[in-house]
Amino acid sequence: MEGNEVVMIDQRKLPFSFSLFRSGDYRTTCKAIREMVTRGAGAIGAAAAFAMVQAAMEAEKTNNPGLLLRAREEIRLTRPTAFNLFYNLEKVFAACQKSVDEALTIAQQLADENAEEGRLIGVHGAKLITEGMKIATHCNAGWLGFVDYGSALSPVYTAFRDGKELFVFADETRPRSQGARLTAWELAQEGVPHTIIPDNATAWLMQQGEIEMMITGADRIAANGDTANKIGTLEKAIAAHHFGIPFYVAAPLSTFDLSVSDGSGIPIENRDEREVHYAEGPDDQGFLHTIRLTNPDSQALNPAFDVTPANLITGFITPKGIIQANTEAIQLLFSDGK
Amino acid sequence: MEGNEVVMIDQRKLPFSFSLFRSGDYRTTCKAIREMVTRGAGAIGAAAAFAMVQAAMEAEKTNNPGLLLRAREEIRLTRPTAFNLFYNLEKVFAACQKSVDEALTIAQQLADENAEEGRLIGVHGAKLITEGMKIATHCNAGWLGFVDYGSALSPVYTAFRDGKELFVFADETRPRSQGARLTAWELAQEGVPHTIIPDNATAWLMQQGEIEMMITGADRIAANGDTANKIGTLEKAIAAHHFGIPFYVAAPLSTFDLSVSDGSGIPIENRDEREVHYAEGPDDQGFLHTIRLTNPDSQALNPAFDVTPANLITGFITPKGIIQANTEAIQLLFSDGK
Repeated sequence: MEGNEVVMIDQRKLPFSFSLFRSGDYRTTCKAIREMVTRGAGAIGAAAAFAMVQAAMEAEKTNNPGLLLRAREEIRLTRPTAFNLFYNLEKVFAACQKSVDEALTIAQQLADENAEEGRLIGVHGAKLITEGMKIATHCNAGWLGFVDYGSALSPVYTAFRDGKELFVFADETRPRSQGARLTAWELAQEGVPHTIIPDNATAWLMQQGEIEMMITGADRIAANGDTANKIGTLEKAIAAHHFGIPFYVAAPLSTFDLSVSDGSGIPIENRDEREVHYAEGPDDQGFLHTIRLTNPDSQALNPAFDVTPANLITGFITPKGIIQANTEAIQLLFSDGK
Repeated sequence: MEGNEVVMIDQRKLPFSFSLFRSGDYRTTCKAIREMVTRGAGAIGAAAAFAMVQAAMEAEKTNNPGLLLRAREEIRLTRPTAFNLFYNLEKVFAACQKSVDEALTIAQQLADENAEEGRLIGVHGAKLITEGMKIATHCNAGWLGFVDYGSALSPVYTAFRDGKELFVFADETRPRSQGARLTAWELAQEGVPHTIIPDNATAWLMQQGEIEMMITGADRIAANGDTANKIGTLEKAIAAHHFGIPFYVAAPLSTFDLSVSDGSGIPIENRDEREVHYAEGPDDQGFLHTIRLTNPDSQALNPAFDVTPANLITGFITPKGIIQANTEAIQLLFSDGK
């Protein structure tokens, strides 16, 4: 946050151009979350926290305390699945009752915590990565989706900086291609050897012994370990289970929603079918076009997330260490009062 | 075949425009197969057969019998996986030793057989489809990929024409989007209720009880029932198995390759990575553009097929009826000398 502006990397434009999106009020920040200017559980959480701060600033300036409740509701409605959004929002909303300064302090603290949690996920997760390992990931849970480090990619970056040889398969992650666009771009920036694969190729590469471990992020984890994440995660987890390949989910503590007992209680966002029908990208002269990919007379479904049952998850990589995906281990994770 | 021309629907241009591609010699027909002007196991088989006839015509005209062997080799090398190509090619090559007329007769006969086999697959497969059933398919194995009827979609068309209510989920089938473009277009032409889904959504829809059966085509079936088909088939079969959903493979007899004992003997084509990086389609004014979908600095893998082990396949829908996916049932299928 700079002054009263929330500054975000415009992830819609990556990898073809790098630009910052500046939002001067909470309504614009809400729109930026809805339209995925910013995305990824951690980044959404940070944006929601700062949106609430913007609302507090506006409420003070216009002497309109009723705005706080309205803004909280509007921020809540931006995107339903990632729990980090609700976790951060409630903390900042509570701070707003004290003062704008307190709200800003808390929002910044949550962002700093998110960065530190990402760093610790890297430290713990890197222990799973052996020399020469070939790792698959789905969607983007790197530093674009978080503050600074990321979740799923943080162990990869830590191991790579520690000098381990490794290779990453980034699947495309249709329909929005976060894997082919954002994860591949991040890995290229970090110099990590990688290749893009069609979503359809994961099971085949597992069968061929090409994938030795899979790590994804999470948008919300229920009390029993059932995990909502980007659509396709379930299919990859089933394939990994079938071939006996370790399947880890990396997440900060703010992704765990202990109020939801299992995955059936996690709301799944259905997004506009246009995301399936159209794609935007540059032609070979750099001019951007939006083209139709699908049969013009047909409709499409676009569920943005799915729920992977806990029994398909080898473990969670958390800032406090690696734990099993079950109720007891998750309870223990939170038992020190955090 | 019209005169010495092989006439194909240009499937690269569908669903945005319908045009015919006319090839005047076997080299152009080979190029059309390689570049997927025509595609789908049955259609490739028919094109290969007519390409061999074109070579026989040219050999006769130029009094160059050595051309036959060279052409056969060139046709063999167009695409490695679909067995129908090799099956048809050898039959027509043998006929070429007699006369051009005999070659043409055999090629036409094979195309007619393919159409009749598709019709019979529809008759047998339609028995599996119950009133109101929701069926998923992968890639395109309808009449575009075959002569007249198709394999995977033939039961759907037969059941639908018989008045059964049904619904089809056509997954996109990245990277070439045969599902979103060709299957969706075919289903729209036939008036069959359907929706396009991202490849990533199949397991989620299965988990939600939305998919009750899955039918795909096949490019080559080994003697033990292991089946090569479009990349992603394996992942869908694993998901179907996980959820206990029937997974059928529909294929004519010319797709079975009894000379290959199991799936490890089936060659898998790796295609140009550009198919993953770029997509072509019209903008909202109908102008076609080719755009970059992926991070420009990254490479991509593009395996075109995978192999689904027989134990994940509920059964084969063949022109002779529905059989189990095992060595004994396949041997029995061919035991009458066909």
